[in-house]
Amino acid sequence: MPLSPTDIEALGARAEQMVNALGTISAEPDRLVRLFLTPEHRRAADRVADWMRAAGLVVSEDALGTVRGRLTGTGPKRLLIGSHIDSVIDAGKYDGPFGVIAGILAAEHFSRSGRKLSFGLDVLAFGDEEGSRFPTTLASSSACAGAFRGETLALADRDGVTLGAAITAYGKSVEDIPAAAYAPGEAAAYVEVHIEQGPVLEVRKEPLGVVTAIIGQTYLNVAFAGEAGHAGTVPMALRRDALTGAAECIAAIEQFCRTDQDGLVGTVGYIHATPGATNVIPGQVSFTIDMRAPTDMHRKRAVADVVRQIEAIAGRRQLSLQLDVTHENRTAPCAPWLQEQIAQAIAAEGFRVFELPSGAGHDGMAMIDIADVGMVFVRCRGGISHHPDEHVALADADAGARVLLGVIENFRPLEG
Amino acid sequence: MPLSPTDIEALGARAEQMVNALGTISAEPDRLVRLFLTPEHRRAADRVADWMRAAGLVVSEDALGTVRGRLTGTGPKRLLIGSHIDSVIDAGKYDGPFGVIAGILAAEHFSRSGRKLSFGLDVLAFGDEEGSRFPTTLASSSACAGAFRGETLALADRDGVTLGAAITAYGKSVEDIPAAAYAPGEAAAYVEVHIEQGPVLEVRKEPLGVVTAIIGQTYLNVAFAGEAGHAGTVPMALRRDALTGAAECIAAIEQFCRTDQDGLVGTVGYIHATPGATNVIPGQVSFTIDMRAPTDMHRKRAVADVVRQIEAIAGRRQLSLQLDVTHENRTAPCAPWLQEQIAQAIAAEGFRVFELPSGAGHDGMAMIDIADVGMVFVRCRGGISHHPDEHVALADADAGARVLLGVIENFRPLEG
Repeated sequence: MPLSPTDIEALGARAEQMVNALGTISAEPDRLVRLFLTPEHRRAADRVADWMRAAGLVVSEDALGTVRGRLTGTGPKRLLIGSHIDSVIDAGKYDGPFGVIAGILAAEHFSRSGRKLSFGLDVLAFGDEEGSRFPTTLASSSACAGAFRGETLALADRDGVTLGAAITAYGKSVEDIPAAAYAPGEAAAYVEVHIEQGPVLEVRKEPLGVVTAIIGQTYLNVAFAGEAGHAGTVPMALRRDALTGAAECIAAIEQFCRTDQDGLVGTVGYIHATPGATNVIPGQVSFTIDMRAPTDMHRKRAVADVVRQIEAIAGRRQLSLQLDVTHENRTAPCAPWLQEQIAQAIAAEGFRVFELPSGAGHDGMAMIDIADVGMVFVRCRGGISHHPDEHVALADADAGARVLLGVIENFRPLEG
Repeated sequence: MPLSPTDIEALGARAEQMVNALGTISAEPDRLVRLFLTPEHRRAADRVADWMRAAGLVVSEDALGTVRGRLTGTGPKRLLIGSHIDSVIDAGKYDGPFGVIAGILAAEHFSRSGRKLSFGLDVLAFGDEEGSRFPTTLASSSACAGAFRGETLALADRDGVTLGAAITAYGKSVEDIPAAAYAPGEAAAYVEVHIEQGPVLEVRKEPLGVVTAIIGQTYLNVAFAGEAGHAGTVPMALRRDALTGAAECIAAIEQFCRTDQDGLVGTVGYIHATPGATNVIPGQVSFTIDMRAPTDMHRKRAVADVVRQIEAIAGRRQLSLQLDVTHENRTAPCAPWLQEQIAQAIAAEGFRVFELPSGAGHDGMAMIDIADVGMVFVRCRGGISHHPDEHVALADADAGARVLLGVIENFRPLEG
């Protein structure tokens, strides 16, 4: 049942309206902050569940807060469509919500058509893609994939609340986590529409892209302990300043990644110096490192090299060092047969088929454990993401939502 | 009225007991945090006022929370004895309180003796020597010196509370600040006993030292703004990362001070990166700089040089820069006539007279506007200060309290 031009226009406009509505749900009045398992997450999940019900889906919610809107089909297989509704701190409103909303609008179309698809359709709204609250990420999609790591329950946010305690406070039970998992063979594929979060599509003047792979990432947490002291009385030569040690590491990471010619990126996004007073030499510092490279081998070699440099800096400065890998994802290749179907849907809408890898992580990295993964990227203005200026043109939102609908309409599970 | 040996022993033991009592008043159960104009400051000020009343002093409190215990003399001149009761974050318990307590114990001695001194005695407990709450310091002693800078009222703490609002919340009125000032010519001298907060006395095996000067300091606040972005999608070459810029500055400041051969010290004690998430390139960073050198000219040249380096780093990295001098104190020389009287009191107690400058700032830097300044340093274990391990041996506390009493006993105002 193809859409009429009127329907198509309505799809993009409705997506934008719903993105704006979800974008008002925040922990802070002046910027978008919607972290995993917070009251804001609760409010956003409730809004999404309302939309799903209005679209004719049967709604449930698992132990990690993932909202699932289900449409039954004539066959036993299910096509999973998903994205996330958590955000970074001071976020844009499209990153995550756009994919969930495009999924709901597509599901609504098939729900209202009265014609059953040959496969079931699940729209998933995950709650922990960004990893902005706990020093881990993809907790919710990992649970759906049956690969939730129990040890992450003990990880604490910056207020000392563990993931386990946050799940309980959200009204869920950690005992129900296994029930969130799809059964082996149940899912035919996982398909996600997401904004690119980078400048490539804009530079190439393409509204959409077929994602070839989601590149891997390693998160590290580094803690240095030196000795606090009075800023006026301890000579420079006798200091064991944890912050100058951290500064040397940050400069070294930047230098190392800049000289790499093959797409290595390294970021220190968080730093905290203790005690944190103007006139006290910092005795302790902790900071995070995010490292990504186009291949897993490249990234792993780079991480090992950076770790060696940090160890050398700690040794030379007589700082004690605690270094932990808090999160690691291998590169998730998108399935060629799904790339093919996505390409056909893009071509059917009259756009050029353009392929690109994803430098950003996505829930597909976890979902690949139980399903082949496909992704559609939608152009975002200036490549800007994780920032309030994040924006998708109405025409591009239209295109993304229409292509997802086309992918579902013509979806053929892999034979075998 | 000289003390008997029993009194002398009691003086040190009582000082230690009172230091311990004040050391329990903290914002946090596991470490000492007593910031300016907080509920903890209120409780400490009340305790000090109680001690002053018990010692026979007439107590008042000014608009900046300075507690003043007053003993009248036969003449119009006043000898001011003071120190501070605020602390850094995770502080030791001697830094500040020891000087206030030694002053109260000495005043009690003269109050109980029944014999009036030829001069009035004011014991002052200041509340803002550390500058740990607001990006300014010496607000309370500056008010006593009639040099309070009205523009500091607009400076905010990290929760956005301005100094002006904190004064109001403390139950005081900014309109009463001028009344805190001593009249010109009213104060004959300002004398302070303080722990050294450095390793010199310990290395020289001296319990006490005569301070020759309090060396100047400059505090700067540096704010960089670049562009936040996704840690996985923005190539290294296109980043405007505020934190890597700050790291380069911190490394440059350390390198610059390390290569100086004349006692220059520079410290970055506080840093904050925004938004502060593992997977987001920091768009904004702010950090503080504390710079000190034995002479004002040396410090000023060094500050100018560091500022030039920071400007160059900002320019090269396309970061916008906001750089403010938040606090500056010129070097405060101790008056030779007071150094002489302190030296006599030290010698009278049987110790060698040892002279040293103070690398740490003290309230005398403000009080010098209305009185000649003298300072006695007391040895602290390992030179450690601004740290919970800060400690003064009982014998050294005894020696410090006895010498202060001796200075008062034999105080002769400068003729003229």
